[in-house]
Amino acid sequence: MEVVLQSSPFFRGVEYLAIFCCGMAGGLAAIRKGYDVFTIIITAWLTALGGGIIRDVLLGAVPPVGISDRVSVLTALLAGCTVAIIHPEVDRLKWSMLTIDALALGLFAVNGASKGLLYNTSGMTAVFLGTFTAMGGGMIRDILLNEVPMVIRDRHWYIMPAVIGSMLTVPVWRWRARGMISERVAMALDVAIVIVVVLLRLGSVRFDWQLPRAVPR
Amino acid sequence: MEVVLQSSPFFRGVEYLAIFCCGMAGGLAAIRKGYDVFTIIITAWLTALGGGIIRDVLLGAVPPVGISDRVSVLTALLAGCTVAIIHPEVDRLKWSMLTIDALALGLFAVNGASKGLLYNTSGMTAVFLGTFTAMGGGMIRDILLNEVPMVIRDRHWYIMPAVIGSMLTVPVWRWRARGMISERVAMALDVAIVIVVVLLRLGSVRFDWQLPRAVPR
Amino acid sequence: MEVVLQSSPFFRGVEYLAIFCCGMAGGLAAIRKGYDVFTIIITAWLTALGGGIIRDVLLGAVPPVGISDRVSVLTALLAGCTVAIIHPEVDRLKWSMLTIDALALGLFAVNGASKGLLYNTSGMTAVFLGTFTAMGGGMIRDILLNEVPMVIRDRHWYIMPAVIGSMLTVPVWRWRARGMISERVAMALDVAIVIVVVLLRLGSVRFDWQLPRAVPR
Repeated sequence: MEVVLQSSPFFRGVEYLAIFCCGMAGGLAAIRKGYDVFTIIITAWLTALGGGIIRDVLLGAVPPVGISDRVSVLTALLAGCTVAIIHPEVDRLKWSMLTIDALALGLFAVNGASKGLLYNTSGMTAVFLGTFTAMGGGMIRDILLNEVPMVIRDRHWYIMPAVIGSMLTVPVWRWRARGMISERVAMALDVAIVIVVVLLRLGSVRFDWQLPRAVPR
Repeated sequence: MEVVLQSSPFFRGVEYLAIFCCGMAGGLAAIRKGYDVFTIIITAWLTALGGGIIRDVLLGAVPPVGISDRVSVLTALLAGCTVAIIHPEVDRLKWSMLTIDALALGLFAVNGASKGLLYNTSGMTAVFLGTFTAMGGGMIRDILLNEVPMVIRDRHWYIMPAVIGSMLTVPVWRWRARGMISERVAMALDVAIVIVVVLLRLGSVRFDWQLPRAVPR
Repeated sequence: MEVVLQSSPFFRGVEYLAIFCCGMAGGLAAIRKGYDVFTIIITAWLTALGGGIIRDVLLGAVPPVGISDRVSVLTALLAGCTVAIIHPEVDRLKWSMLTIDALALGLFAVNGASKGLLYNTSGMTAVFLGTFTAMGGGMIRDILLNEVPMVIRDRHWYIMPAVIGSMLTVPVWRWRARGMISERVAMALDVAIVIVVVLLRLGSVRFDWQLPRAVPR
């Protein structure tokens, strides 16, 4: 579906939206710590594209998209600049940011898993790549700012929706590769997967769904 | 010796044991911080296989074994699940865990250095790769949980036995490659190296051997 | 200019000086935290060569120079040993260390960007690679020692001079590649870029130049 996702202007647009939103979320974290504009922009860029960089390094697709695709990079840098100016507004958008972040989670999971499959990895490897793409940026951001990464800290579902999204992407991609479904159906299914991820993530925050801890004794 | 190690069912078994034990140690660290089951499993997996992932990325052997070898991955995930259930028992096994961790240190050092040599790196590069394989997982785990990595924090010998083990692996591998020793002898020497690493690590903890600090003045 | 930089004994010498100084700065950070000799040496090595390792992994130039070039590795290890002995003297050299660190920043930026271009990356990718090479080592060191990386923490210009140095390297390299300037001129321009980076960095610390924070409201 990489091809499908990439070739469709709609999906390209949504992907850049995800990068932009991720970048804003990253920049905001740097702003809250009082860092300067340059650090804000770098943090925005790493948050938006770090996951894809990890994915590409693990796949051997170098140099990674995150430092070579002009539009992606400019989108991420623009997000950093934007948030440096309109941060009070962004800060107030708690639910919007959460939704946008969840959207990015889903899009990156589908995108990462598909790119893995395109490079002929096994389904399992593709699931890992999708998960890494979805979580990587936030992980790098939090490590840089010296916090326990949110993917670990967050009591709500964060990694799990990404894993589920990546898993669901594998059969869709295979059906399409074998010609069992048309491009249009594959695209619709990919959209559905993204929606599932978003709903799982938002539902978890809204209704305080939590995974069990280690068996207490 | 990679070939030897890989082709021997005995060594394969021991390697999976190392992954399993490393994974349990990693999961335990997440349990102690009160994280949920998913985080425990992810931490277990990264601790068990993170060193090998670094090794494979540095070698260009992508996608890394840590996300593509089914048995390794399942072993690591299983370790996470297991420790989430039997953690009180594992927690009590201080010396057993230490021994198992030391065993993993030795096995990963021998395995990492051998894999490097198999890819035609120089001896020096192989030593670095062996050391990274042995230390990488624990390093990633501690960075994720926002602690100073144990390899740095631990006052006892930790990196040094791994470096020594990796160094000893180089001549053994070369003798075998040149046909100077038989496969059986090479395997015996590899086992001896693992034992040396384990003894150095355990001896250091038991008898409180410490490396000197910077020259005080 | 990689070729120029590499083929010139003068530049090779300066590069090893940069590695040595970076290594001393890294070792010093470990000494201040009271770690043992082995940790000091490992920290020195990672600080000196970590940036180049990131650059080479992103470029697919594996195994990275940082684990395969004998002279670089020995220089870094020697820096760690040296600083473990003469740390009180090094500690007193505040401005010298700052200058040396700035020199390394400039050299690594020029060197990283040039190596990228040599591997046929776009100018943008080369700028990223130059920046990563310059910042990477310090970033890894601070993550290992569990601090907010200095590139983020430092209120003065740190990333920006590296980015500017990398950007300036791109046209110089291209002019040379197209035969528009001689090797001698290219080398002189590279030296000038390094000087610009050093002046920007030192000027920022000396005169307390700071970048603006996010727009306050």
